[in-house]
This record gives sequence, C-alpha cells and structure tokens, in this order.
Amino acid sequence: MTITISVFDRSPDGGKGLARDTRVRWAMEEVGQPYEVRGVSFAAMKEPAHLSRHPFGQIPTYEEGDLVLFETGAIVLHIAQNHAGLLPKEADARARAVMWMFAATNTVEPPILELANAVLLERDKPWNAERLPLVKDRVRDRLRQLSARLGDVEWLDGAFSAGDLMMVSVLLRLRASGLLDEFENLAAYVARGEARPAYQRAFAAQLALNTRM
Amino acid sequence: MTITISVFDRSPDGGKGLARDTRVRWAMEEVGQPYEVRGVSFAAMKEPAHLSRHPFGQIPTYEEGDLVLFETGAIVLHIAQNHAGLLPKEADARARAVMWMFAATNTVEPPILELANAVLLERDKPWNAERLPLVKDRVRDRLRQLSARLGDVEWLDGAFSAGDLMMVSVLLRLRASGLLDEFENLAAYVARGEARPAYQRAFAAQLALNTRM
Repeated sequence: MTITISVFDRSPDGGKGLARDTRVRWAMEEVGQPYEVRGVSFAAMKEPAHLSRHPFGQIPTYEEGDLVLFETGAIVLHIAQNHAGLLPKEADARARAVMWMFAATNTVEPPILELANAVLLERDKPWNAERLPLVKDRVRDRLRQLSARLGDVEWLDGAFSAGDLMMVSVLLRLRASGLLDEFENLAAYVARGEARPAYQRAFAAQLALNTRM
Repeated sequence: MTITISVFDRSPDGGKGLARDTRVRWAMEEVGQPYEVRGVSFAAMKEPAHLSRHPFGQIPTYEEGDLVLFETGAIVLHIAQNHAGLLPKEADARARAVMWMFAATNTVEPPILELANAVLLERDKPWNAERLPLVKDRVRDRLRQLSARLGDVEWLDGAFSAGDLMMVSVLLRLRASGLLDEFENLAAYVARGEARPAYQRAFAAQLALNTRM
C-alpha cells in the first residue's frame, strides 16, 4: 500500500533537515520502506483539506490506505511497530525504547522549543538579550542529565532504536546554538546518528526537494 | 506482579492532582489494576538511587519486576498496551489513540510548560508583565485548533482512550490560568474526564497522600 508523507513544499530551513518530516523519512529508510511525499505550502497548511489531516496545521502527516496520522512521534512509532528495524523484540526493551521516544518529545524537546521561540519569535523584544541565558540554562540542565545517563555507550539502551532516532533528531536542532558541543558525548551521539546510511538517505531526499529549481 | 509508582513525597501543588503521577494513577484505575506508591522527597529525587530509575530526576517512575520506566506518556502507553480499557482493538483506531497521546505531550503541552515557566520561574523578572500575554497567545493558538477539531463530540476519536487521558491531564494544568474556560467545548471535555470514576479514585488517592498529617 502506498505511504504518503506530507512535507513543507519548501522547508523554511532551506534543506538543513530540521523540519520534522526528516524524522519520518529517516524512520522509513531505517525499515527499508518506500514512500511518496506531498508538498504543502504555508497557505495550504491552514486550509481545510490539510487541517482535516492535521488539526494543528503542521507537517508531517502520514497516509496509508484509510489511516491518516499526524504527530511525528506517533508516526515513527507506527512505522516501528509495523516493520522490523526500529524496536527490540523483547517486551521490556521495547517499552524502554518507547520511553526514550517520549523522553525526547516531552522532556528534552520542550526547553529546546522554548529556546527556538526566544530566538525566532522574541528576537526583537527588549528583554531578549537578558532572558536568553536563562532559557539556555534550562536546555543545559536537560542536556547535563541526558549526558550523564548516556555516558560512553553508543545508543541510549542497547541497539539503535526509534528512541535514538527521536532523541538525535531533537538534539540536532541545538547544533546552531552551540549548546550541543558543550557536551562531548552528546555531540558524538548525534554524529553517530547522522552517519547512519538511513539518515543520509533521508537527509539527501529532503535536501533535493528543498533546493530544487 | 506488584507494580510500584514513584510519586512526590509531598506534591508541590498540595494535592491539586496536577503532578504527573496522577496521570499514571488514572491509567491504573481505568484498567482496574492495583499499584503501590513510593514517596520520593525533593532531596532523594536528585540522588543516585532515584536517578538510576529516572535520569531527569523527576516523578513518576513505574516498576514491574525487572522493568523500570520513567516518562509519563510511556508509562501510560505501557499500561494501555498490557491491559484492556485504554486503547481500541482495531489497529488504525489504536494508532490514532497513540497519536493523540503524542499530540498532548509534544504539541499541546510545550506552550503550557512555557507558560508555567513564565509564571513560576520568571515571575519577578522585569519583562514578565509585558511578555506573559505573548506566551498566553501561543497557548490559545493551540487550544483554538484543538477546540475546532474536538467540535461537539465527547472524546477525541470514538471511545475514551489513553489519548483523552493524556489530553485532559495536560489541559487540566491550564485551569488556574483561566485560558481553558475561553473554550467552552474544551472546558466541558476536561470536566467529562474529571467526572470519570477512575479519575475520581486517582485524584482521591493522591489527595489523601498529599494532605496526610
């Protein structure tokens, strides 16, 4: 059955791979499944046809027959549950991999989103210079805890899983801030994620779309 | 097998039910499973014994034999996958219920956490009065979209599910701000969640613990 993922018609990052469709593309590449994409313009994202698929007017969405999903974490989990390659078979290890998916999206990503808001939406506000260090420290608190847990192992819990896919994707958004490089083992962890052939293919596919003539 | 959930020894909300253990208690009540609790003090939350269970030094955790989980969404999903009552049986409907769990934690909750940070951590900052309306508007944007999707149905997608449990729990944190009451159908949706006998039992259990002599 054809799987269609909706993506930015042109990603606002110009192909840096930080839009969330890259996470879904990466998951599809890890499990070796083909997919098609539907580009959605900023105007179309707020129109009824897209809102019927994604009530929050964002990308990505995932369509497979009658099933329509939004929310990146849920899409990645759906892919991981239906194809081998992203979740361990043993029940407890599987629950822990899902745990890291939620940790990425609900514990590590929120302060990163707050930092992105400060940088993008409050850039011209009079308080921004004084406030930004506080927001960065909230991100550092999380990174310090994550770094301590990761230690010197390769992935968060045994073999590479959907939990690592989500965590690496969340941390990637921090590279431009310089915060990631303050934690050597996290920077190396993210680099290991990026080095995976499946990530490389996903990155190349979004780059080609977003830099097409 | 005994299931143990770690909770605040004394919740900072004094028993209002907003600490995240209430979400796990609620899930356990919906599926009709007994559980024990372990109170953890603020000091103990930062000590090695607790950090080995929860690398971010928070509550709740979930222990069941050799399995140790942190992250509320993952714990609720684990409970829902292993006991009837919180997920539909049909595969597509099940994927959509999980989608709403991620939507609650990764799309609706982040701006609510940002508002909580503004109110709790930046209360005394010189910019707070001017900045607070911007942060509230970010929450409103999400509530407006959620309200439009919910419309006049009872639950987000068919029968009550773990997706509703998480969404109601996330929205509950907004009540004190008054923002929830700006959206009549969302306020009624949250009230329906609170009226469930399982929620009532979970709320009463955390209240008894947090108001004990």
